[in-house]
Amino acid sequence: MKRRFYAANVTLGPVILGEREAHHARDVLRLQNNDPVLLFDGKGTIGEGVLSEVNKDRVACRVESLSSEKKRDRSIAIAVAFPKGARSAFMVEKCAELGIERLIPLICERTVTVPSKSKIERHRRIAQEAARQSRQGSAMAITEPGTLADILKKSAEWGTIVLAAPGAVSENRGTGWGERGSTLILVGPEGGFTEKEVTTIRNAGATEHHLGEQILRTETAAIALAATAYLIGHQ
Amino acid sequence: MKRRFYAANVTLGPVILGEREAHHARDVLRLQNNDPVLLFDGKGTIGEGVLSEVNKDRVACRVESLSSEKKRDRSIAIAVAFPKGARSAFMVEKCAELGIERLIPLICERTVTVPSKSKIERHRRIAQEAARQSRQGSAMAITEPGTLADILKKSAEWGTIVLAAPGAVSENRGTGWGERGSTLILVGPEGGFTEKEVTTIRNAGATEHHLGEQILRTETAAIALAATAYLIGHQ
Repeated sequence: MKRRFYAANVTLGPVILGEREAHHARDVLRLQNNDPVLLFDGKGTIGEGVLSEVNKDRVACRVESLSSEKKRDRSIAIAVAFPKGARSAFMVEKCAELGIERLIPLICERTVTVPSKSKIERHRRIAQEAARQSRQGSAMAITEPGTLADILKKSAEWGTIVLAAPGAVSENRGTGWGERGSTLILVGPEGGFTEKEVTTIRNAGATEHHLGEQILRTETAAIALAATAYLIGHQ
Repeated sequence: MKRRFYAANVTLGPVILGEREAHHARDVLRLQNNDPVLLFDGKGTIGEGVLSEVNKDRVACRVESLSSEKKRDRSIAIAVAFPKGARSAFMVEKCAELGIERLIPLICERTVTVPSKSKIERHRRIAQEAARQSRQGSAMAITEPGTLADILKKSAEWGTIVLAAPGAVSENRGTGWGERGSTLILVGPEGGFTEKEVTTIRNAGATEHHLGEQILRTETAAIALAATAYLIGHQ
């Protein structure tokens, strides 16, 4: 596996790595001149090349070819009622790190808060920073808030819809979804989906994922599903 | 599935639920008189009975039999270098919610901070609150910090040792460990385990779990592994 490094601008020819990336390449991974590497800019461009300079003052890479990041063969969106305060920010950061493609603030009957425009902007910055930090080509999108009806109206867009709930019937062990294609995971708010909402989701053809016997907080459920998709579906 | 509620003292006879639990039973789940319920006290005692009073002022349960919580047929410990500040607190809360039995602050070559006695006390309170909130019989333990050598000295205690690292060879898809018996998961610090440490862990007979291509923060890796064990191994 070629090591990947972030650079704000990826162009053909020499690219000097930032301090943090340079430290990682030189001091942690102990890479040497001519070691092959990949550079990515967080906007979808990948540069392939070799290290051309590794010393105390700087680490540079000579980019020999450019390409666009290949589209993932699966994409996962999570629609979730955002919890309050720091819990939302943490949920956004973790879902972004774990490669979720889209996070949809869900408005449902028991939703307590709907994030404001400025909150959503703040969350988008957190997602971008998480993409940069975890070395992904592109950042998780955070859409405008939508009701369950809004979201299910576009249900044909998704190969699989997953209803995640404590009381859900476990149809599989998490490996049946998320391996390929596009998946939408619906996570209920504190207090859960209402019976009416569960019926609506089931009628939309959702598969169900049992969340275990413990009562998980909303953000924990979202992160746990993102993590399971990442560690299991991704390999 | 009988609904579970927390009560500080679980005894035979009538037990009045606290405000939060009463609200959940009455207003969210809309339970009625004579509905069967379980009470637990977070210290391992389970009371079985029925609701004997459901009204605006209070919700009470009549406990008809007492038992001890059955021991889980698996237990998972995570040894992880604690990150700084709020990231540690969040990691503790999420690992506790997801049913990890023991969290061990790991001291290794690239460890930046070792939690102080007072920090560990604070983390223990967070774990207790998470157990209460997620309705588990007992709270996750947080041990004193230990070096890799300290921890591996007791390696016979564990049925399975898992090395979780970005560069680890993926021997399984997460379903090979954590289903039964006791498992110790080792998560590296920011910057990763050193090569020497990886060799030591491999020599202790560890199985490896590949953490995917993204660079996960320490607390994200710990939470992701806890979540995978919870959602996959638990069903």
